[in-house]
Amino acid sequence: MLKDWKKSERPSDEEVQVKLDTLRAQLATKQTLLKDHKLPVLVVLEGWGGAGKGSVLGKVIKNIDPRFFKVATMSVESEEEKRRPFLYRHFIKIPEAGKYMFLDGSWMEDVTNEYLHGDLEEEEYKNRLTSIKQFERQLTDNGYLVMKFFFHIDEKEQKKRIEGLLEDKNTKWRVSQNDLWQNKHYEKCLDVYDAYLRETNQSQAPWYIIDAKNKKWAEAQLLDILVNGIDTALKNEAKAVPILQNMFPLRKTPKLSEIPLDKELTEEEYREELEKCQKKLAKLHNELYRKRIPVIIAYEGWDAAGKGGNIKRITGALDPRGFEVHPIASPEPHEKARHYLWRFWTRLPKTGHIAVFDRTWYGRVMVERLEGFCSENDWQRAYNEINEFEKELTEWGAIVIKFWVQIDKDVQLARFTERQNTPEKQWKITDEDWRNREKWDLYEEAIDEMLQKTNTVNAPWYVLESNDKKYARIKALKILIEEIEKKL
Amino acid sequence: MLKDWKKSERPSDEEVQVKLDTLRAQLATKQTLLKDHKLPVLVVLEGWGGAGKGSVLGKVIKNIDPRFFKVATMSVESEEEKRRPFLYRHFIKIPEAGKYMFLDGSWMEDVTNEYLHGDLEEEEYKNRLTSIKQFERQLTDNGYLVMKFFFHIDEKEQKKRIEGLLEDKNTKWRVSQNDLWQNKHYEKCLDVYDAYLRETNQSQAPWYIIDAKNKKWAEAQLLDILVNGIDTALKNEAKAVPILQNMFPLRKTPKLSEIPLDKELTEEEYREELEKCQKKLAKLHNELYRKRIPVIIAYEGWDAAGKGGNIKRITGALDPRGFEVHPIASPEPHEKARHYLWRFWTRLPKTGHIAVFDRTWYGRVMVERLEGFCSENDWQRAYNEINEFEKELTEWGAIVIKFWVQIDKDVQLARFTERQNTPEKQWKITDEDWRNREKWDLYEEAIDEMLQKTNTVNAPWYVLESNDKKYARIKALKILIEEIEKKL
Repeated sequence: MLKDWKKSERPSDEEVQVKLDTLRAQLATKQTLLKDHKLPVLVVLEGWGGAGKGSVLGKVIKNIDPRFFKVATMSVESEEEKRRPFLYRHFIKIPEAGKYMFLDGSWMEDVTNEYLHGDLEEEEYKNRLTSIKQFERQLTDNGYLVMKFFFHIDEKEQKKRIEGLLEDKNTKWRVSQNDLWQNKHYEKCLDVYDAYLRETNQSQAPWYIIDAKNKKWAEAQLLDILVNGIDTALKNEAKAVPILQNMFPLRKTPKLSEIPLDKELTEEEYREELEKCQKKLAKLHNELYRKRIPVIIAYEGWDAAGKGGNIKRITGALDPRGFEVHPIASPEPHEKARHYLWRFWTRLPKTGHIAVFDRTWYGRVMVERLEGFCSENDWQRAYNEINEFEKELTEWGAIVIKFWVQIDKDVQLARFTERQNTPEKQWKITDEDWRNREKWDLYEEAIDEMLQKTNTVNAPWYVLESNDKKYARIKALKILIEEIEKKL
Repeated sequence: MLKDWKKSERPSDEEVQVKLDTLRAQLATKQTLLKDHKLPVLVVLEGWGGAGKGSVLGKVIKNIDPRFFKVATMSVESEEEKRRPFLYRHFIKIPEAGKYMFLDGSWMEDVTNEYLHGDLEEEEYKNRLTSIKQFERQLTDNGYLVMKFFFHIDEKEQKKRIEGLLEDKNTKWRVSQNDLWQNKHYEKCLDVYDAYLRETNQSQAPWYIIDAKNKKWAEAQLLDILVNGIDTALKNEAKAVPILQNMFPLRKTPKLSEIPLDKELTEEEYREELEKCQKKLAKLHNELYRKRIPVIIAYEGWDAAGKGGNIKRITGALDPRGFEVHPIASPEPHEKARHYLWRFWTRLPKTGHIAVFDRTWYGRVMVERLEGFCSENDWQRAYNEINEFEKELTEWGAIVIKFWVQIDKDVQLARFTERQNTPEKQWKITDEDWRNREKWDLYEEAIDEMLQKTNTVNAPWYVLESNDKKYARIKALKILIEEIEKKL
């Protein structure tokens, strides 16, 4: 794309100025529209070192009220960030509904730099491009406006600019080692950037190349495209998008109704196994930490199925500095304003740590589906989005284990009634629990579909038969131990 | 995509049958919805020879009223078709609004076959993939539902099927040379198909891989995806899509108001030049025919600017067997029901022929824009769509020349009045002409934008100053001659 790109003729300085005045005023009027339509806008600025992304960005944001935007500048990955999946530091920066996020440098810079410097093998680089395309598609599918700009200057111009900056001791610091490297290997970089742009130039999130030789003209081009992009996006509310075919190898799952729930342990068996398992798990936790392997344990299950007690038996074995439990309730406003997976991306463990989710991203295809908190197209699309999400996690090296804690309807009723009648347990039972119980059959249908469509080989579901909580706890521990041992 | 695709487990025969019964009934209910929503559905069936596309297709269409669908089977390119751009025979088959078109084999088969057999060089193949991606994007951007299926069987299964067909003399004819070749070079084909699917797997027109080992199961998979795809598409009416950046090198164009219109020829100069030019053109026409170069001449201009007379002076020089004039009025219902470029694709000349369009595809960004016959997003997108269309033509080898016939407002008034007052010319002037005249300024603005955005190097605009019709006619002839000579 960069190679066959022809710049259009630059208008005269006066014409550019007139354009700029109009466009700046137009941009200023958009912010309340964004807010009214709850449109999140992600603006990605990429380009050659010295092309002036930063200074143009500085001009652009002058037209927007600071409450409506954030700016993030690409920095070297921190040690903290290195311990997360490569998309982590980008995903957590996505804008809230109704607001802008401007990224001065992004995942493109990340992966092309690593690739150019030989730190990413060909195959790994291709995998990252696939992840990036999925990431961008997930954003646009979920109603994000994603505008990607590449600031383009030629080799000579870049050289001139770098030399200009170096000559002045006040600006010298702005020239990075990478800028120098880029200019020295301009042709090689051009090849890689060109291929990257072509590969990631998807119709819903296309690339726009900015002729960056003149700063005002660059700003005018960017504003023009941005204003038009916002206008286009504002016309589409709750757009439905095609449901992609499942491309993940799936394990066969029985229906919930086919699972016998008569398994149990005696008190004695339980105590014995519990001690044995917990000891083993504690040892494995150390090894995980040393080998920097992250573990993600997802709990879903019926109300009163015994998730809480089950989780306690696992965390009871772990060093408290090495794990975190995330109880997931309804999303907070700032979470609701973002992609539904955002609040899980932000809670990912570091390498070597264990994160336990008490309820998870599967809310999308259960409660959100059944209560109409998202559209049909949203939840139908979510199976694939979730499989992609979990694939990112396992590709990163994580162990992902998903537990469905299963009980039958009678047991639930007994436990509800007991909670109702036991003063110190009453906080655990709400009207909502009773309302959900009435929808048991609808939930069961949704859960069966969920288990079937997301029981991937890399992140499988395990059903914990929990009519006898003791049995379920030991089973969870054993599965966890087995999966960790497999990985070590 | 094919290579890392894992088939999901096939349900039992009874389960498949239950699914089929439901899905067939569902599909049957869609046809009136398609009609009500005016949704055109293009279903593309691709896959291995012997995978059973044809027989599944035969089953699928049984559930649809014959008035609502057409089927086209991929055939060897006819001699006629070979004389058109490679997309021609596909573009003309797109469905009407509210109807299905099922394609048993498509452009994928076309280009991958040619490529596999060494008839397409690497670079030409890449260009075709780009064209195909643009074509599919143009369809989905314009509201088409495009569903692409690949029927997959493994090497052994294909071999078994081919042998089975060959054994029976009643089915022997169904095995093509290409099927045999494919099976012999299965791995090589797999590589090419896999890369093709990956490259053309765009989010708005994704690929779906069908496990084709069992026919009923294949049908069930296809129906399931098709029914869901239709449901999704029905939710989106008049969706706006991002406006892509111009990637075509443009020539600088003056504004209409800057063009002096005082150029003229004496009667004598005119006659002399006319004779000379026409003689020359006649000679060139022969050469074009011999070298099989197609020519497309597009005329746009103000009412009463003198398009008709200008065209006559050109065609007057040509052998009537080698040209065609297409007067373009408002689209007929069957044209209106399709992509706005369809009626121009169907009118493309054969190689060696000249097509003159009296008004053109530029109606999209003039009358359709100003009269609100399409949405703003539609006409804004059209500049790029038109540039892509003309690029297809010149890539194919055509000479594309676009004339804007220019007069000023006073001259138009004089000509209108003369027409009004001359009985034998009265048919040439309508109320609509007077109404359009009132919108002169709006039109001028739209035309300036059009000239600026579509004056590509490969298909340039020429303004014919036609206050003096004689001058405009000679200028047109001279440009035509020059452009043809350049190409020969």
